[in-house]
Amino acid sequence: MGLGLILTFEQEKTIIRALLRKLGASEKEADATAEVLAEGDLRGLGSHGILRLPYILRGLKRGTIAARAKVKIVRETHATALIDGGHGLGHYVATRAMGLAVEKAKKQGIGAVGVFNSNHFGIAGYYAELAMRENMIGVVTTTTDALVHPWGGVEPLLGTNALAVGIPSEPPVLLDMAMSVAARGKLVDAMKRGERIPEGWAIDSEGKPTTDPAEGLRGALSPFGGAKGYALAFVLELLAGPLVRAGVGRGVKGTLEPVEDFCTKGDFMIAVDPTAFVPLEEFESRVQEFIAEIKKSKKAPGVSEIMIPGEPELKARERALRDGIEISEEVWGELRQIAQELGVDIEKIAA
Amino acid sequence: MGLGLILTFEQEKTIIRALLRKLGASEKEADATAEVLAEGDLRGLGSHGILRLPYILRGLKRGTIAARAKVKIVRETHATALIDGGHGLGHYVATRAMGLAVEKAKKQGIGAVGVFNSNHFGIAGYYAELAMRENMIGVVTTTTDALVHPWGGVEPLLGTNALAVGIPSEPPVLLDMAMSVAARGKLVDAMKRGERIPEGWAIDSEGKPTTDPAEGLRGALSPFGGAKGYALAFVLELLAGPLVRAGVGRGVKGTLEPVEDFCTKGDFMIAVDPTAFVPLEEFESRVQEFIAEIKKSKKAPGVSEIMIPGEPELKARERALRDGIEISEEVWGELRQIAQELGVDIEKIAA
Repeated sequence: MGLGLILTFEQEKTIIRALLRKLGASEKEADATAEVLAEGDLRGLGSHGILRLPYILRGLKRGTIAARAKVKIVRETHATALIDGGHGLGHYVATRAMGLAVEKAKKQGIGAVGVFNSNHFGIAGYYAELAMRENMIGVVTTTTDALVHPWGGVEPLLGTNALAVGIPSEPPVLLDMAMSVAARGKLVDAMKRGERIPEGWAIDSEGKPTTDPAEGLRGALSPFGGAKGYALAFVLELLAGPLVRAGVGRGVKGTLEPVEDFCTKGDFMIAVDPTAFVPLEEFESRVQEFIAEIKKSKKAPGVSEIMIPGEPELKARERALRDGIEISEEVWGELRQIAQELGVDIEKIAA
Repeated sequence: MGLGLILTFEQEKTIIRALLRKLGASEKEADATAEVLAEGDLRGLGSHGILRLPYILRGLKRGTIAARAKVKIVRETHATALIDGGHGLGHYVATRAMGLAVEKAKKQGIGAVGVFNSNHFGIAGYYAELAMRENMIGVVTTTTDALVHPWGGVEPLLGTNALAVGIPSEPPVLLDMAMSVAARGKLVDAMKRGERIPEGWAIDSEGKPTTDPAEGLRGALSPFGGAKGYALAFVLELLAGPLVRAGVGRGVKGTLEPVEDFCTKGDFMIAVDPTAFVPLEEFESRVQEFIAEIKKSKKAPGVSEIMIPGEPELKARERALRDGIEISEEVWGELRQIAQELGVDIEKIAA
């Protein structure tokens, strides 16, 4: 970082949209993808931001990601649906899926939607927020390529399987986490910088804890929280896998980059209408009281503030909306090259 | 242990039923409570087994737990319901709640039921299993008295908030875990035996990690997995709290023992019918393949078998069904005294 440049939220979205449109994405597909990627960057979750755009553009070129994809409901009840994403842009398909879950929850109190034949969708928390905007609780899980070892095992057999839970309230509560202690991208970064990683992040291919990021990348990421995190990753793998006709374990491919074939990940989303249980005012005011109790409680030595889930990311978002999003030289260079090939002047948009 | 006695599963249930019936519980209430407590003991989760019966019997005597409770649905849609448990036996109320969730899931594909005015319900996994028996996925969460500190905080403000997720398959997959690294009961046991606890289990009242169980009990339990476990405990606290008209944070009382007043915990349960998404055979066979892949994968040094979620408990259950359930002298002594007062000859049942 540092030698790259600063984009505003709108500039970043404009660039993403322009490049996607050149490769045949519809306006809605381009808008959804731009929105979610830029939201990732705003929150400091750069590994799910514009960094991923080159992968997406390569997928569109190869045809492993479909532009103007046919998104179809293949099975449906009043409260549930299974969606075939037609290999479309994951952000757009997932936006449609949560929209449908919310629509069902408005009528039935709860709605659950599964997705297969889709692609990496960026930050899971975004879709929980789509539910929160409609005063709904949103629950989102998704699978990734197998990167995490089972507890007691050595081989990467489970995805990092993000889980997001959003609670509509002011301030909002938004859990958004992966099942690994650390993201794969952090190991890649450490390797590039020639740094060690903390013990506990990964094991080598023999199953021994390692502080060498290269060894960790050849081995497997460790689940957070030991056996408990493993168990949680396991059940999420089944919910966003076999339940929704998506891949499972080593069968999940293409979330890092859909190089050879279509991506086989899956999503599972639930929207819950709090008013099916209690009046919204009662719910929100009691959530607020709890947040206030946590925030004002005694802090551990050296801690200046107790955060509620999602608060660090939303603070980063406010800063980035004001100060702009820093794009690394490496990412900008890659984007500029692709943009040139596509005949889009992204320098002009960034100016 | 060792100086106590051995009960069969049926003997334990007969004793529990007899004592509950003497204090006015209906046959169904007594049956459900006996079933869940004895299942806890079978699985080696003794802190949720017959150990808790004296607390329950004292609650029934005092009236803080209601016998022949009026369990009412106070709000309902086709796919959701909110249940007022009438301060009844938690095991019975929760059994009813999951039954209703399953009934709704059979019609709508998914059903969600919240519970307030209920009591400690034993092992959360049991209710997920009720769903699994009907080929449904079961999700269960419940709150407890505030025992866990927020990440960066010192005060116990969150429950241990069990989360259970059951996936119908052969073998079954059953995640059942609390949000604390270790159960409160393990600190109590260590204190009685004069032993230290591992660092990471608890903090003292100043917020410093402690290996002294007494200090830990005066302080707070630590969430598993650091900030991630805290965030998960936080959202479960809201789902099984404000969403279902139950207490939240320090407002949750009576799960250790309903001494002074009614218990204010809450439950939130979801049943999902896999066939709303994919045919059951497809789902089960793909789950089985994944389990097989995990089981046969390479083991870490010193590990003889990789377990799937729920497997250790189900192995313990098989052993206990065969060899019996060991009841400690302390627990048996307490039960014998209560039984004498109630005029029930539990020695005869145990013979």
